[in-house]
Amino acid sequence: MTDTKTHIIDRAFTTESGFTFPKLELNWKSWGMLNEQKNNVVVICHALTGNAAADDWFSGVFASGSPIDLSQYYVICINAIGSCYGSTGPWSTNSETGAPYKNTFPEVTIRDIVRSQQLLLDELGITGIELVIGASMGGMTALEFAIMDPRVRTASVIAMGKCHSPWAIGISHAQRSAIYADAKWNNGDYERDDPPAKGLAAARMMAMITYRTAHDYEKKFGRNVNQEKGLYQVESYLNYQGSKIVDRFDAYTYDRLSKAMDSHDVSRGRGTFEEALGCLNKPIQVIGITSDRLYPIHEQRELAQLLPNSEYAEIESDYGHDAFLIEFEQLNTLLTPFIQKHR
Amino acid sequence: MTDTKTHIIDRAFTTESGFTFPKLELNWKSWGMLNEQKNNVVVICHALTGNAAADDWFSGVFASGSPIDLSQYYVICINAIGSCYGSTGPWSTNSETGAPYKNTFPEVTIRDIVRSQQLLLDELGITGIELVIGASMGGMTALEFAIMDPRVRTASVIAMGKCHSPWAIGISHAQRSAIYADAKWNNGDYERDDPPAKGLAAARMMAMITYRTAHDYEKKFGRNVNQEKGLYQVESYLNYQGSKIVDRFDAYTYDRLSKAMDSHDVSRGRGTFEEALGCLNKPIQVIGITSDRLYPIHEQRELAQLLPNSEYAEIESDYGHDAFLIEFEQLNTLLTPFIQKHR
Repeated sequence: MTDTKTHIIDRAFTTESGFTFPKLELNWKSWGMLNEQKNNVVVICHALTGNAAADDWFSGVFASGSPIDLSQYYVICINAIGSCYGSTGPWSTNSETGAPYKNTFPEVTIRDIVRSQQLLLDELGITGIELVIGASMGGMTALEFAIMDPRVRTASVIAMGKCHSPWAIGISHAQRSAIYADAKWNNGDYERDDPPAKGLAAARMMAMITYRTAHDYEKKFGRNVNQEKGLYQVESYLNYQGSKIVDRFDAYTYDRLSKAMDSHDVSRGRGTFEEALGCLNKPIQVIGITSDRLYPIHEQRELAQLLPNSEYAEIESDYGHDAFLIEFEQLNTLLTPFIQKHR
Repeated sequence: MTDTKTHIIDRAFTTESGFTFPKLELNWKSWGMLNEQKNNVVVICHALTGNAAADDWFSGVFASGSPIDLSQYYVICINAIGSCYGSTGPWSTNSETGAPYKNTFPEVTIRDIVRSQQLLLDELGITGIELVIGASMGGMTALEFAIMDPRVRTASVIAMGKCHSPWAIGISHAQRSAIYADAKWNNGDYERDDPPAKGLAAARMMAMITYRTAHDYEKKFGRNVNQEKGLYQVESYLNYQGSKIVDRFDAYTYDRLSKAMDSHDVSRGRGTFEEALGCLNKPIQVIGITSDRLYPIHEQRELAQLLPNSEYAEIESDYGHDAFLIEFEQLNTLLTPFIQKHR
């Protein structure tokens, strides 16, 4: 997570759930130059375990040939509140107690994440957002951005639907249950140097399965055995993924941000889905991934149908949900005409 | 698990992994009358958390209108070794130590399960098996039965493929990792009255997701909330499924039998899949479930193609893998002509 900075929003921020932070810290990163009108902005929104360093995890969009040309655009990515990557989160100090929030950190929603990011854009004086783009939790954030922020001109939302389905909520819940099954979770009161690592690793393993496909695993692993470890290669791979998440992520954040994803429902407080989305006349590109097992493609098709000014496209891939982190050539090919058409 | 009996096989039994039990206990149940030739037998094989009381969990096959007519057939179901339902398993007493095997219980394979069941059929004097049938782990067992036992005339194998895919192994592994994340697993040394209940519950929740489909969850739960519990209904449902498995099942068995499923590979020691299956000339009905997320339908189609005398059929269902426990009308409709043709 190289070269990110932290900005302090020195005013109270109240979440949808009614919790008030006296101030917010927001970790962020930007690329390119803001123009005089401060309206050449592209906002990138990150996924569950992502962070503000979008050039790391969304590298293909920063590569040459990408339609997000850094000589024209000012690109910004802001870490979600609740995350462990520098924005106000469970390990931030509660100024009332002088101790970290930990499990007293409130439940946050996708809309809370958007509202917090809007505050930073306000303080930067941003007057126009050419594009807001994201996939998975980032797509949910981008869609709410398009709904909530009149500065947003267009959005590209990838690999998610109009709400978190019960299927996706169930998957989140099973993962959280694995974290809670680790005694070190300690009913939500653990120390930073002694986290529920095994539970978090198991949660990540489950997640990694829903992020890929049977076909991808077949090609990659077959029934090959890692003789040294006495494990199938797929088991050894999942163990590795589990240990990697423990090194770079936090169980409180996994809990809070997976619940934020569960809260994703553009109709909440806005009538029906038709009513909530029917008045969103901005061009919205909806990109589905044909093999997505977490958010099956019909969810993206349905979202596109509900949006009066949508453009629907698909990434053809066997990788499943994770294709948004892999199939950059296709993604750029789909993004280019959308961005050029609406610039 | 009503009216099952336990039979003792009073001779040594050595597993594929080389572990020798001095004797075996097998829990079993039968229905109908054995004819004089002792060849009017149907063997039902159970799934991971199933047991010998097939009339409980496979009730539709015992209903009127089922082609498995109890006035003609002697039907038997034998609990897998490694299970917690009465056959020799991790809680059985190791006669060498006088204590339960617990985590010293060996890894068993689908073939070990078949060989143990053959011993009981031998002692009953069975000379012919008209049909061996099962789904999921039961289908794997039935297929190995057809390969290994010359008494088997036909088989109907449902919702599984030629081997456990890396996708399915990964799903098993993530579930086992949730069990191991529970400190009460205690590196495989827990007491019966203090099991890793939270880990087992989390494993079951994961499993329940792979047994169903996004579509089924959408219809059943939507985004409805259980106000009393402050949970989405799908979360409350999964918690209930988690607590139910803890009441009726055991973590050692979950570990050992899920690994037995991972071991499923009809080609092991038999050359290629073509070689292993190409010489199996018995009529084998392969039944796929269109919406199966755990064993995608292409696996069943592939299995049918590898079998020289296969008859392929599909259960059309939105329920996913669990359809074999629900769609009995379709199952009976598919079974009837197969059984009549080959009787």
